[in-house]
Amino acid sequence: MSCEVLALTEELINRQSVTPEDAGCQQLMAEYLAPLGFDIESMVFDDTTNMWARKGASGPVFCFAGHTDVVPSGPAEKWTFPPFTATQHEGQLYGRGAADMKGSLAAMLVATKAFVTKHPEHTGSIAFLITSDEEGPFINGTTRVIDTLEARNEKMTWCLVGEPSSTTLIGDVVKNGRRGSLTGDITVKGVQGHVAYPHLAKNPIHLSAPAFAELAQTHWDNGNASFPPTSFQVSNVNSGTGAGNVIPGDLSACFNFRFSTEVTDKKLIERVTSILDKYDFDYHIDWTFNGQPFLTDSGKLVEATQGAIKDVTGRETELSTAGGTSDGRFIAPTGAQVIELGPVNATIHKIDENVNIKDLAELAKIYEGILQRLLA
Amino acid sequence: MSCEVLALTEELINRQSVTPEDAGCQQLMAEYLAPLGFDIESMVFDDTTNMWARKGASGPVFCFAGHTDVVPSGPAEKWTFPPFTATQHEGQLYGRGAADMKGSLAAMLVATKAFVTKHPEHTGSIAFLITSDEEGPFINGTTRVIDTLEARNEKMTWCLVGEPSSTTLIGDVVKNGRRGSLTGDITVKGVQGHVAYPHLAKNPIHLSAPAFAELAQTHWDNGNASFPPTSFQVSNVNSGTGAGNVIPGDLSACFNFRFSTEVTDKKLIERVTSILDKYDFDYHIDWTFNGQPFLTDSGKLVEATQGAIKDVTGRETELSTAGGTSDGRFIAPTGAQVIELGPVNATIHKIDENVNIKDLAELAKIYEGILQRLLA
Repeated sequence: MSCEVLALTEELINRQSVTPEDAGCQQLMAEYLAPLGFDIESMVFDDTTNMWARKGASGPVFCFAGHTDVVPSGPAEKWTFPPFTATQHEGQLYGRGAADMKGSLAAMLVATKAFVTKHPEHTGSIAFLITSDEEGPFINGTTRVIDTLEARNEKMTWCLVGEPSSTTLIGDVVKNGRRGSLTGDITVKGVQGHVAYPHLAKNPIHLSAPAFAELAQTHWDNGNASFPPTSFQVSNVNSGTGAGNVIPGDLSACFNFRFSTEVTDKKLIERVTSILDKYDFDYHIDWTFNGQPFLTDSGKLVEATQGAIKDVTGRETELSTAGGTSDGRFIAPTGAQVIELGPVNATIHKIDENVNIKDLAELAKIYEGILQRLLA
Repeated sequence: MSCEVLALTEELINRQSVTPEDAGCQQLMAEYLAPLGFDIESMVFDDTTNMWARKGASGPVFCFAGHTDVVPSGPAEKWTFPPFTATQHEGQLYGRGAADMKGSLAAMLVATKAFVTKHPEHTGSIAFLITSDEEGPFINGTTRVIDTLEARNEKMTWCLVGEPSSTTLIGDVVKNGRRGSLTGDITVKGVQGHVAYPHLAKNPIHLSAPAFAELAQTHWDNGNASFPPTSFQVSNVNSGTGAGNVIPGDLSACFNFRFSTEVTDKKLIERVTSILDKYDFDYHIDWTFNGQPFLTDSGKLVEATQGAIKDVTGRETELSTAGGTSDGRFIAPTGAQVIELGPVNATIHKIDENVNIKDLAELAKIYEGILQRLLA
């Protein structure tokens, strides 16, 4: 089992599948799953390749979710080993996607084979939801597969996303939810003029500075037992013609909320608007809603995951909702319980991305243990 | 006299003297002045051509100051008439520099000839300080001529700068001073990070927003009888990587003071620093001092100018210190009384710049009247 998960991870790393390319990764997975009794459905939307694979017709449905695409390597010459040639070195496996998340995909395959071999008559169904657009604009990936499944009323009960959730040791952290994300692009309208004639102009930097100061100092909520407090960050602000003697005509800025389940996108929009409207200036905001927060608070999936980690590693796992967004946000709204469990994330998106080889084998055993607890 | 000032203005407009080019304008002026008894001194510094011309060895010294360079025309096809071919149309003379300030230069020449013809034995001296770099970086122009004159202890008593000071009718406004100008380029230092992990970053936009709000709302002084209140304007602010999920590592901004004689550059720097230091963030400011305010409050030059305008036009003139900077700021610190008087400035630096032809003749008469009052 240990050898097989390593070999599969290497085969996947060697396929250069930078978003939205799949580079044959899903074909490799399909060829592994079909003999185990899976029905394979390829769903290609524009430039994105997705796969829905399912074994069994009844519920409950346990689904492994993940992505075959990886972020670009950056300059290959900065890597110690070639980014798209899997290389073993001192117990680690190097290559782009080793940790995020080709190692997880390999562990899912091996765990599934081991489980269905031992339990050919297992209850319910096992499924795979795999996309090649998780690192990209997430338009033609998991969202569209979910839309397709919802349209035919095909539901999952439990979903395990293979995102690299561990921080130091495999299984030390499991994500059982994610914060919501909301972005605003604001334009503040002033009147351009010469700095020597300020009474003929309206400076959008001056007009908006106290409003930004208030937004930056606002306390949005206290968070709760599962979520840190909602945070607001201005990521970009630009105003000015470049000339030192011209009062600019407008200012543009971009800000982002990562928010807890104590608020909603609608409440945040209301509060931002009511703060800005206290100040006397014209503005326009284009809002982009990136996803509601979700939480898999407790239940069979969390229990099975904690139990399997404890069995394999002896470790008590920590449940966390911190960090960036993941495709879990698109799956949770269907009513599925969703958790994320994968390798140590210390090197993801970096030069010399790598994964511990022993961790890969343990991850496969943990995944198998979860299937065992839920479907045996 | 009316014909001659028009002809000279046309000859100057036809010389395409975009900063720092002089294109032979000063040669034309020198050839006009030499027969009247002027000693001509050409001072070329790097790319800039300057002329110092003087008639007489004793004091008091009356100096006409001005520039032969013009700002670019922009797209010539947008002009009704070719920008560098002087064109008369319905009582106006069109062409780049017509109002700023080739018309003034022609009027100075014609006024001088009329005066010295009538008063060959006038008291004191008449001088011309002409540069080809007033619209540019003002490094090798008036400042360097002044340095040269100061080094040999050659002083002016009175200086009339031919900048287009009039707003509606010739002579309706005379500038008897200018505000000071001080520029600050500030960098606010934060710590870059991911918006999902704000506790690991320091957002320079958030840190500095309340400080900018306070600076924008600060009342710097009340001005005085001669100056409007000191004004502060942020002209540019930029921060952010362009990505919506990154907290930027720094923020840069540029601001400018136009300040009255109630403060100094040093006091403003002190006050800005003390406001910024109340907030807890790292910053660095590069200060650029563009000139102290100056004021020619009253005295013989102002009286002579007001009297000559009244005689020629019947108009009471308004003294003003508003508007942008001029080369007067480099001359006033030598102790000279300085005023600015020239054509209506409605079209300067614009497409279809033009001057009223009758105004040119009146301006020459006003200039002659000033010489008459001071040196006859």
